[in-house]
Amino acid sequence: MAIASVSTITSASPVGWQDAAERGFERASKTLRGITGMKVLEEKARVEDGRITEYLVTMQVIFVLEDADPS
Amino acid sequence: MAIASVSTITSASPVGWQDAAERGFERASKTLRGITGMKVLEEKARVEDGRITEYLVTMQVIFVLEDADPS
Amino acid sequence: MAIASVSTITSASPVGWQDAAERGFERASKTLRGITGMKVLEEKARVEDGRITEYLVTMQVIFVLEDADPS
Amino acid sequence: MAIASVSTITSASPVGWQDAAERGFERASKTLRGITGMKVLEEKARVEDGRITEYLVTMQVIFVLEDADPS
Amino acid sequence: MAIASVSTITSASPVGWQDAAERGFERASKTLRGITGMKVLEEKARVEDGRITEYLVTMQVIFVLEDADPS
Amino acid sequence: MAIASVSTITSASPVGWQDAAERGFERASKTLRGITGMKVLEEKARVEDGRITEYLVTMQVIFVLEDADPS
Amino acid sequence: MAIASVSTITSASPVGWQDAAERGFERASKTLRGITGMKVLEEKARVEDGRITEYLVTMQVIFVLEDADPS
Amino acid sequence: MAIASVSTITSASPVGWQDAAERGFERASKTLRGITGMKVLEEKARVEDGRITEYLVTMQVIFVLEDADPS
Amino acid sequence: MAIASVSTITSASPVGWQDAAERGFERASKTLRGITGMKVLEEKARVEDGRITEYLVTMQVIFVLEDADPS
Amino acid sequence: MAIASVSTITSASPVGWQDAAERGFERASKTLRGITGMKVLEEKARVEDGRITEYLVTMQVIFVLEDADPS
Amino acid sequence: MAIASVSTITSASPVGWQDAAERGFERASKTLRGITGMKVLEEKARVEDGRITEYLVTMQVIFVLEDADPS
Amino acid sequence: MAIASVSTITSASPVGWQDAAERGFERASKTLRGITGMKVLEEKARVEDGRITEYLVTMQVIFVLEDADPS
Repeated sequence: MAIASVSTITSASPVGWQDAAERGFERASKTLRGITGMKVLEEKARVEDGRITEYLVTMQVIFVLEDADPS
Repeated sequence: MAIASVSTITSASPVGWQDAAERGFERASKTLRGITGMKVLEEKARVEDGRITEYLVTMQVIFVLEDADPS
Repeated sequence: MAIASVSTITSASPVGWQDAAERGFERASKTLRGITGMKVLEEKARVEDGRITEYLVTMQVIFVLEDADPS
Repeated sequence: MAIASVSTITSASPVGWQDAAERGFERASKTLRGITGMKVLEEKARVEDGRITEYLVTMQVIFVLEDADPS
Repeated sequence: MAIASVSTITSASPVGWQDAAERGFERASKTLRGITGMKVLEEKARVEDGRITEYLVTMQVIFVLEDADPS
Repeated sequence: MAIASVSTITSASPVGWQDAAERGFERASKTLRGITGMKVLEEKARVEDGRITEYLVTMQVIFVLEDADPS
Repeated sequence: MAIASVSTITSASPVGWQDAAERGFERASKTLRGITGMKVLEEKARVEDGRITEYLVTMQVIFVLEDADPS
Repeated sequence: MAIASVSTITSASPVGWQDAAERGFERASKTLRGITGMKVLEEKARVEDGRITEYLVTMQVIFVLEDADPS
Repeated sequence: MAIASVSTITSASPVGWQDAAERGFERASKTLRGITGMKVLEEKARVEDGRITEYLVTMQVIFVLEDADPS
Repeated sequence: MAIASVSTITSASPVGWQDAAERGFERASKTLRGITGMKVLEEKARVEDGRITEYLVTMQVIFVLEDADPS
Repeated sequence: MAIASVSTITSASPVGWQDAAERGFERASKTLRGITGMKVLEEKARVEDGRITEYLVTMQVIFVLEDADPS
Repeated sequence: MAIASVSTITSASPVGWQDAAERGFERASKTLRGITGMKVLEEKARVEDGRITEYLVTMQVIFVLEDADPS
């Protein structure tokens, strides 16, 4: 590894936290190249009209900077 | 939103943490009206006789106070 | 309970965090007798070539010391 | 002081965090007798259509239990 | 265990923190049924006129909800 | 909500923390579209020549990613 | 900067937390020379007879030691 | 209350943590006037030759500054 | 000191937390040589049938590794 | 200062943590203008084949936004 | 990676923290096979007779369990 | 040990964090007698004109109070 950057995202799923994390990863993959890992920071849920409508995961996404200096 | 209160509960499931959170929500819904969200604080497991018997989730439940002042 | 010891492990699964915790428990059961509980400390994922290859759970494993003094 | 209980609430204001805390106190005073103090846990804001619509304060409210044992 | 709720209280004693926790438990037992455990969050002392007048313990009290769903 | 990103900024005001947060929001709004919320992380002040010259707020800014997948 | 020391104070105001911090700074300025900054650690309120009587701010005060070594 | 300062001390006892805190308070009272409270931060023990020789308590001591401005 | 290792244990007492820590130390002393200190991490209590049956202390035990390199 | 943004990076060095931080700063300087400070969040090391191959530093990089409003 | 265990050690050096970490790694390598990483938890120093005699690093050592299940 | 006090300082060096800590210790030694240890709380750097001008260490300095009671 050379130099990596850490980005924080929140993603949602109607199914559960595992699925929310996978969706977040897929969305992040479209914007960020060189992702090497993720770390969960927070798990929440949104409730409307008496039922859980969204499972929310906030997580860090780590990705290598492409033009990093060779080390 | 006007004024909300935050309650902390622990719920259990023989299946897993996702299921424990859903059971906790269903139980909380019977007592608390106006739930708007939940937040996971802790995930544990209880082990007996060499196998996991309960997945335990401690979480905050947020619910709007019904007679809140209009704001 | 008499006296318990707390060990920290990290386990991995290609499927998800719930599965990683169960694998970690099974592996820990081979070495440690008298496990009474577990507590999740951290959930991460490893990414290679644009897909998640491992879900990682770091957790504490609590086990009773067998030759503990009767209390 | 004898025995006190701690409750957590979230209150909102269109003006700012100081005002949100005061509103939260006024609402809490209608339900809880014997309040002796408050402690701020979190300050957030909600944004809609490009402007801040609500300043949110989450805080603990401490109140003495009335039928406490004399000590 | 089925579903448990977590309450936070502060109790006081002129003698020490151990005694304050026991007093807090006794007071909590009058209001809450089904208490299964406690956890210390904070230990403080109040001083007046050059001597410690109160030892204060803030702790969580965990109690099972009686009408919980059988699981 | 679909996928949101979290950015951290520090903003300053000669007047106070409430004003610093509002200025930070206005500046962030010029760069980030789809802001949905903010969360205060830290409040500081800078002092020069015996008076407070700047109130500093560090806060997270949450904004929805516009090309997020429909969920 | 050479060497700085960090002091912790708590100040109070009947008006609000912003005012309490300013009062704390003014009081600290009478004792400490070379103050360069402050950092808020905790915001509380004291309640008596059903109204907030004091807003309390606990904060760190940073001040340069005057006889520091030149560096 | 007007303006208070917070000092951190560590005190020791051969007997236990409760006693260590009381000794720390007595020692602090000789130097600091106007103490209003204490808060425990850390409890440790020192072991030598197979037995506990000292129970150590690190705690904050809060004391009012005597020449504080009337507020 | 050369190199030390840190182990985490939980011990229990029917009497109180001070006693639980002493019991934990005695039990740890049977397994670990070269203990130099302990640090309290958590204090809990277990309740059964309306009374406290166990005071639980989780603490780190520090012990020097005997075959450490001379330094 | 006007408005600053906070970015998180991880950098590596075969030599040590001090060197890793300097490399991280140099890499960050190529992308970000107006850097005013850094703050260390985490220090790790990677080990392969029985020797430390990389010292890793995760740190926040603070940089002023150039088109910030004059304040 | 399959299953890893996390051990906590404290090591010392008369030279500095970087050296203390390297010494700790070398000592740990004699006991633990399969070390894959380390993480710094705490940096301290011991002072005697007016000079620093030891730089102390407490860190986690991560090592793969050799007889782990293939995954 | 009898009774110790804990002071917090921030020191700087153009060379690195290890050097900053040593400078801080030397400066503290001029004011405080009986220093027994230090603990690093925070490592930062100040950047001006595209280069690191100061490495900053905030640390606690522990020193025994000389007129402490014999224990």
